[in-house]
Amino acid sequence: MAQDPFDWIDRHHARRRAAGLVRTLRPRPADPSLIDLAGNDYLGLTRHHEVTAAAAAAARRWGAGATGSRLVTGSTELHARLEAELADFCGFEAALVFSSGYTANLAAVTALSGPADAAGPGPLLVSDAGNHASLIDGCRLARAGTAVVPHADPEAVRKTLEAHGGPALAVTDSVFSVDGDAAPLAALADACRAHGAALLVDDAHGLGVLGDGGRGALHAAGLAGAPDVVATVTLSKSLGSQGGAVLGPARVIRHLVSNARTFIFDTGLAPAAVGAALASLEVLRREPERAARVRYVAGELHRRVTAAGHLSVRPDAAVVSVRAPSPEAAVAWAADCRAEGLAVGCFRPPSVPDGVSRLRLTARADLSDRQIAEAAATVLRTAPAA
Amino acid sequence: MAQDPFDWIDRHHARRRAAGLVRTLRPRPADPSLIDLAGNDYLGLTRHHEVTAAAAAAARRWGAGATGSRLVTGSTELHARLEAELADFCGFEAALVFSSGYTANLAAVTALSGPADAAGPGPLLVSDAGNHASLIDGCRLARAGTAVVPHADPEAVRKTLEAHGGPALAVTDSVFSVDGDAAPLAALADACRAHGAALLVDDAHGLGVLGDGGRGALHAAGLAGAPDVVATVTLSKSLGSQGGAVLGPARVIRHLVSNARTFIFDTGLAPAAVGAALASLEVLRREPERAARVRYVAGELHRRVTAAGHLSVRPDAAVVSVRAPSPEAAVAWAADCRAEGLAVGCFRPPSVPDGVSRLRLTARADLSDRQIAEAAATVLRTAPAA
Ligand SMILES: Cc1ncc(COP(=O)(O)O)c(C=O)c1O
Ligand SMILES: Cc1ncc(COP(=O)(O)O)c(C=O)c1O
Repeated sequence: MAQDPFDWIDRHHARRRAAGLVRTLRPRPADPSLIDLAGNDYLGLTRHHEVTAAAAAAARRWGAGATGSRLVTGSTELHARLEAELADFCGFEAALVFSSGYTANLAAVTALSGPADAAGPGPLLVSDAGNHASLIDGCRLARAGTAVVPHADPEAVRKTLEAHGGPALAVTDSVFSVDGDAAPLAALADACRAHGAALLVDDAHGLGVLGDGGRGALHAAGLAGAPDVVATVTLSKSLGSQGGAVLGPARVIRHLVSNARTFIFDTGLAPAAVGAALASLEVLRREPERAARVRYVAGELHRRVTAAGHLSVRPDAAVVSVRAPSPEAAVAWAADCRAEGLAVGCFRPPSVPDGVSRLRLTARADLSDRQIAEAAATVLRTAPAA
Repeated sequence: MAQDPFDWIDRHHARRRAAGLVRTLRPRPADPSLIDLAGNDYLGLTRHHEVTAAAAAAARRWGAGATGSRLVTGSTELHARLEAELADFCGFEAALVFSSGYTANLAAVTALSGPADAAGPGPLLVSDAGNHASLIDGCRLARAGTAVVPHADPEAVRKTLEAHGGPALAVTDSVFSVDGDAAPLAALADACRAHGAALLVDDAHGLGVLGDGGRGALHAAGLAGAPDVVATVTLSKSLGSQGGAVLGPARVIRHLVSNARTFIFDTGLAPAAVGAALASLEVLRREPERAARVRYVAGELHRRVTAAGHLSVRPDAAVVSVRAPSPEAAVAWAADCRAEGLAVGCFRPPSVPDGVSRLRLTARADLSDRQIAEAAATVLRTAPAA
């Protein structure tokens, strides 16, 4: 090879290594030896026997894959059942299932930013500065313009809509990944309605955790089913499976079916994942107390780390974020927890927009009071010196 | 509601309906009553008992979901095994599994178009005009510039690289979705190497179909494992499961782990899908004749429809595309086939860049000679008058 087209990768890698920002994969065994406060299995359903049995049964009955795009052969009656059940549970008119929450968000943002064949630009996208990567990528892919507004600031949204004067879509996480804080949904909806704008909310961290029996942040805010509100969810956190969905008015869902590229040009979600998500919803309907329990566990973890002097935003859902002095300190802190039998997450640049590294503890409904106390004690014992 | 922020959706829908371009979902039952020439289960593995049993076993042993990003809790030893096996089977140094082929393509294109924190633009993306939507979206998301070149034209790639003069990445499908024709990979690689450019090939329709025992189009072209070549594949077609992967030099894969947004910010592929793909690879290693059979079946379908006077590009893999006089005629043709027990695909604008609607027949290795003859006869019997 005369020239090496990937030599820039080595230079980039060396710079990232020097900055302590290289990531590596650590494949885990089947039987967990650690207490897990790192995953997003908020309700403890991913290993629930009914949920894994439903995944297994769906694979046997419907096949290991969907075999095609949802528009060709990839829609089974099981997909239709999950869509009806998700819409009913969360209080929306209709739902559409995707292969991931990521592709659901790309679909919702791009398809709602106006028709691809329109002459001019579509509705302005007004996007919270703390939004998830998939919403940001959706904004980048959309043909519309994007105004990034300060984090969780409905007044900024109002001013942006006012200055714009035309059609717009405000886009926000319901619970933000980094700090676990909730978006001011009621105030955002007010700002949107005052200017005839629509509201798109990614409830990835709200479903199963917030609202009556885990019906989500939109349900809690009285916004579920509103004609000007669209939600996205993931099936991969509280529901312990894989996939995503968009929930909203029937005409919005119908529009996505014919226009969303990540729906049309993607293979349908595998039947096993569809079956598992359906089973999780069934468990959650029967045991609504799981939602309250995960919020309680998060509150307890937060109470204990802040009582010991650590900086942590009060959690509005399942995610508890604890500030670390540096990326290196965050990595070492997480490694020390792991050595003591506790898996915790670690957020470093570029995953944190403000550059502040954090330890990330996710609450689980199935943790005992004793496990909560032990986990908090491990985090405190291994904390870096201030 | 004072204003209706989604009123444009109804106007758009009315226009699309008038043009015959509205799509609707048709959920299918578990037990197929039709001969399926519409899906992408090329090797007939999605309902293979070993494959569905592996999916079921993986769900029971590893849980219904991966529980987090591959970088946090979402990498199991099963994921690592699939990555090693995919790389080994296809002849590449390393592999990385994604939740879909769509997100694998977004990752490969964006992460290989240069570091996100670079001062200037990254390598120029040189993209075939017939590329899949996910590659196009990757180009749109990338910070680099994109030059779209005429379909399957290595000379155009050469001229574009020459005129550009700087770093570049040529991006192409190996087999194009619409007409089932193959890209001239050897000539493309020559053009790239003459100018120090890298080559990225989406082998979604090649894996399991082309190359020695289904090792794919890159293997067939002697390009697998080359230091300047990267491939993407999907697990959702020949392997009968769900998910995608990027295959390439170890340093490229390592770069994706730390930099690809659809890897970092997406939940890992569900264990059931990982297990199913592993089982399919095992079957394919044991029964390499499946790859030759699917090519034979495609050739037979093509021979019969062209012998009757229909326009169809000679298939290089499993996809046989037959031209229809109009979108309405294509829809009616597919519906008539369905009424006679044959499921076929139907490609209409905007899924066809040239505006020509087509019937799309996908060959399957598990079709008997008699089923092939019957299927072809049904297509011919229901054909619109010329
Ligand atoms: C807020 C948010 N939105 C979307 C996603 C993407 O969902 P999925 O992992 O199902 O693709 C995630 C996490 O993965 C998330 O945290
Ligand atoms: C050429 C090509 N690339 C990528 C994809 C996307 O793969 P997946 O369906 O696994 O997301 C598809 C089809 O779905 C395809 O046809």
